[in-house]
Amino acid sequence: MVARLHVPPLSAGERTLTLPPEEADYLRRVLRARPGLAVRIFDGAGNEREGRVTSIGRHGVSVEVGDPVAPAPECRVRITLAQSLLKGDKLDDVVRDAVMLGVAAVQPLVTARADVPAAAFDEGGRIERWHRIAVASARQCGRAVVPEIYQPLSLDACLDTRRCEARALLVEPSAVTQGRGPRGLPARPASALLLVGPEGGWSMEEIRAAAEAGCTAVTLGARTLRADAAPLVALSVLLAYWGEMPGFGIRDPGLGTRG
Amino acid sequence: MVARLHVPPLSAGERTLTLPPEEADYLRRVLRARPGLAVRIFDGAGNEREGRVTSIGRHGVSVEVGDPVAPAPECRVRITLAQSLLKGDKLDDVVRDAVMLGVAAVQPLVTARADVPAAAFDEGGRIERWHRIAVASARQCGRAVVPEIYQPLSLDACLDTRRCEARALLVEPSAVTQGRGPRGLPARPASALLLVGPEGGWSMEEIRAAAEAGCTAVTLGARTLRADAAPLVALSVLLAYWGEMPGFGIRDPGLGTRG
Repeated sequence: MVARLHVPPLSAGERTLTLPPEEADYLRRVLRARPGLAVRIFDGAGNEREGRVTSIGRHGVSVEVGDPVAPAPECRVRITLAQSLLKGDKLDDVVRDAVMLGVAAVQPLVTARADVPAAAFDEGGRIERWHRIAVASARQCGRAVVPEIYQPLSLDACLDTRRCEARALLVEPSAVTQGRGPRGLPARPASALLLVGPEGGWSMEEIRAAAEAGCTAVTLGARTLRADAAPLVALSVLLAYWGEMPGFGIRDPGLGTRG
Repeated sequence: MVARLHVPPLSAGERTLTLPPEEADYLRRVLRARPGLAVRIFDGAGNEREGRVTSIGRHGVSVEVGDPVAPAPECRVRITLAQSLLKGDKLDDVVRDAVMLGVAAVQPLVTARADVPAAAFDEGGRIERWHRIAVASARQCGRAVVPEIYQPLSLDACLDTRRCEARALLVEPSAVTQGRGPRGLPARPASALLLVGPEGGWSMEEIRAAAEAGCTAVTLGARTLRADAAPLVALSVLLAYWGEMPGFGIRDPGLGTRG
């Protein structure tokens, strides 16, 4: 597999560039590259080109920029994953997996039951770290888009700010009297907000606020999912439901069928 | 949440029992339990009862066995995840997540491109460890069934031995000319075999052998999934497809619709 490198925004006429320090480091230390190596470069904004390493010096790595190539296609539904802060480093894996599955953005949430002390969340550092994780995940999964990682918001602020066409609130089976599917979600939204809670779940006030803001409560089967696995499962099922996995198309009895 | 403890097979008339050493240890050290604590006990074979800790001694913990209670329901489709060995400890997480999602069994596979030296796989030890992981995951997700972890098999032996009604082979987007859905899989199978390959993917011979054995090739969108995330995504989508997530029901254009 050809190595993929993340570079600043690519303009049409660009013919040569110097790699950013982290990518140069990756090329030298991880790939142990030599001049002449064929690579691909992607700019995080959807552009990808062929490339060839021309020189590897102490002060920089130069790449000759080639023809445009097609990266892995983006989802037609622009999904923002609004994910509660989780204990420890669990959100790192959530960001990595959400990028791999194709989300457009990740919105960290401060929720009532998120058991994360404020001191443990150093805003700037964490966002920067999640951005690096997003770049690494895009590199691996073939996307040329690096999803944005927003600054954390409260649930109320998120519901006010992220005005997506479809809004789904993932709830535990125990939070509702019976399983709830996507009835109430639009069939082919242009944008969607998926809200996933912390280890302790949503508070009753949060569930009420989300319902009032037009969110559809959704459950995913009868077993209790680990907090850090829940967003991956929910994204998988919603992406299939919205037709992003060819051949799978999910039918909601309340909405009629589609391919 | 009431603590759940894994115990040997429960018979109808049982009124008191001594916890196995590992569960007694969990109760003492993790839960720091005292006599009188209400618990639930499950036997891994589908039975769950209320319980109450009656004594905590140096040589054992006694539990009074109460009335039967309903555990998280099992899937109607009995899915066996046949998963290639993966590097490092990655299969540990796959076992944990597959149990959480509701599989009936896990069949480790020795595949052509699995980059796992034979010496690194100490059969007895690994199976025992995966069993402990399966118990811990069942404890957390609410199942009273602990899925069986089989001894590793070659792909050919697995295809000969695990005769499920539906057989799906997960392939990378790059392995097929266009995305493949579940067309060809039965609509409501009683049992299903899901085959997931290693980091390096399946060899051409393996894909051919699986096709000859009646497996349907399935892809999951256009992005490249990490090897250890692929089984979780595939299980999520297939469970929704087969109606195990209420409200979601997936339509395959080739098979007609169902709820």
